[in-house]
Amino acid sequence: MSRMKIALAGIGKIARDAHVPALMASDAFELVAAVTRHEPPEGARGFRSISEMKAALPDVAAVSICTPPRGRLQLIAEAFDAGLDVMIEKPPAATLSEARQFADMAARAGCVLFVTWHSRAAAAVEPAKEWLRGKEIKRVEVSWKEDIRIWHPGQSWIWEPGLGAFDAGINAFSVLTHILPGALTVEDAELRFPANKDAPIAADIRLAHAHAAPVLAAFDFDQRGPQTWTIDIETDGGRLALSDGASAMSVDGEPVRLDGGPEYHLLYRQFQALLEDRRSDADLRPFELVADCFLLGRRKLVAPFEDF
Amino acid sequence: MSRMKIALAGIGKIARDAHVPALMASDAFELVAAVTRHEPPEGARGFRSISEMKAALPDVAAVSICTPPRGRLQLIAEAFDAGLDVMIEKPPAATLSEARQFADMAARAGCVLFVTWHSRAAAAVEPAKEWLRGKEIKRVEVSWKEDIRIWHPGQSWIWEPGLGAFDAGINAFSVLTHILPGALTVEDAELRFPANKDAPIAADIRLAHAHAAPVLAAFDFDQRGPQTWTIDIETDGGRLALSDGASAMSVDGEPVRLDGGPEYHLLYRQFQALLEDRRSDADLRPFELVADCFLLGRRKLVAPFEDF
Repeated sequence: MSRMKIALAGIGKIARDAHVPALMASDAFELVAAVTRHEPPEGARGFRSISEMKAALPDVAAVSICTPPRGRLQLIAEAFDAGLDVMIEKPPAATLSEARQFADMAARAGCVLFVTWHSRAAAAVEPAKEWLRGKEIKRVEVSWKEDIRIWHPGQSWIWEPGLGAFDAGINAFSVLTHILPGALTVEDAELRFPANKDAPIAADIRLAHAHAAPVLAAFDFDQRGPQTWTIDIETDGGRLALSDGASAMSVDGEPVRLDGGPEYHLLYRQFQALLEDRRSDADLRPFELVADCFLLGRRKLVAPFEDF
Repeated sequence: MSRMKIALAGIGKIARDAHVPALMASDAFELVAAVTRHEPPEGARGFRSISEMKAALPDVAAVSICTPPRGRLQLIAEAFDAGLDVMIEKPPAATLSEARQFADMAARAGCVLFVTWHSRAAAAVEPAKEWLRGKEIKRVEVSWKEDIRIWHPGQSWIWEPGLGAFDAGINAFSVLTHILPGALTVEDAELRFPANKDAPIAADIRLAHAHAAPVLAAFDFDQRGPQTWTIDIETDGGRLALSDGASAMSVDGEPVRLDGGPEYHLLYRQFQALLEDRRSDADLRPFELVADCFLLGRRKLVAPFEDF
């Protein structure tokens, strides 16, 4: 069976680190083009715009968007105008209203839209969801702390007004909204802004699960040494601990053996399944929770941050 | 025909100024109960909770929520549990995630939910929408400036972390999202916070309509003298001006004669129509735009504000 021809838009760190290897390993997709101002990946032709690419390579059927969140509206509108199915790297957009428009545009164009949350593809996520089913949630603690110097080296967009440390924290929200049985509500938040930046470097958030159980989250972008991506969940049937960004899991201290490969391999398999069903998946709940933190959050100024 | 028995939850300024008069004038609804810690309106019985009310007055069929936005989730969950249809004063909730849950709860309970935006019931709104149909939008300017001392006297909730001046500005967003043919996207915002408050007293916002036309909005909660609620729209077919909160309208400087009564009379007629059709109306776009302003907005500290 011939593979579906796909393009990548935006050839930055996440495209090179994650998308290109996943596509190279895929037996469903063939990476033939890149829309980028930079060098295209090996074996792919480079184009300046989607319409230019579509004119030269009319059999490209889908595009995977890896550009920074600002400015995607126009790009995605062009993709749907060209009849392409679209997969989107997180966070889906700079604003909720834009992200909402993507789904409307996909429906109007009769195209498939996949708003991805790569942390949901981590190995422990589905086993955790299954284990939590039917249990009462008592308390949740989230610690998502990483060093922006490692994960976003030299990326100026990360400090534009917007997510900041929530660019990582939104991964935790994407896992929580997927595995917890009830809905999450933001009750209180403190956002810490470096005096020289327009985005928060850290945040402490208090949420409620299903109106009742406390969910405490701490996000930090200035974590030296070991990186921390953990979710601990106390239930009436034991204690679940997710670590390494939900790629590892233990129950009451006992490690659980997990299957599962790289997150982006699974994301492209999920995209393939959506394409076969001609079905979209555009869950914006993680992004809504982030917007709620900004809406309700108290701001605190902290020391300037010199990153690069 | 006998009127439907309805309750008000939250007897504050907006209930007394707007909801009670509208219900007194209604031939569809009969105000029989109030859920409040204060005095119920004349002719209505007071209760401390929805379940207490439902036990005493099982034939109450609907409740109209006028409490401050914080804490509505529990109240509305109780209303749907009691099988009541629900109408909600703006803003719908303290957070988007809560407001989204209302719609889910309504669907599960088989109840009607009406998320109201009272400014959409102003006399010029439907004529403006009709006039704009098929025209190209060139530029929009919004000025929504009022004196918080007049409109929210002694209301401490208005300064809790959250909307601030957007409590008024969200009315402008509710009109814009209804009358403009395309979608709105927040591009940039400056939010001005008094040094002693956790909510903005003023904001300047730059949006785009349908990816292209500039939409500039200025919100202010510290407007002495005449109050300003205007929307000016330049099109390829002339210039539309809405004033007095979209209750008056002119085209190219010529006033347009309008029909229309008090906003809340129309809101209750709309609720009646939704109940007859067993259909919900829960448009959260105005609230999403506000959340986007907080997400993308640069914060500026301004002089302390002494209100009351």
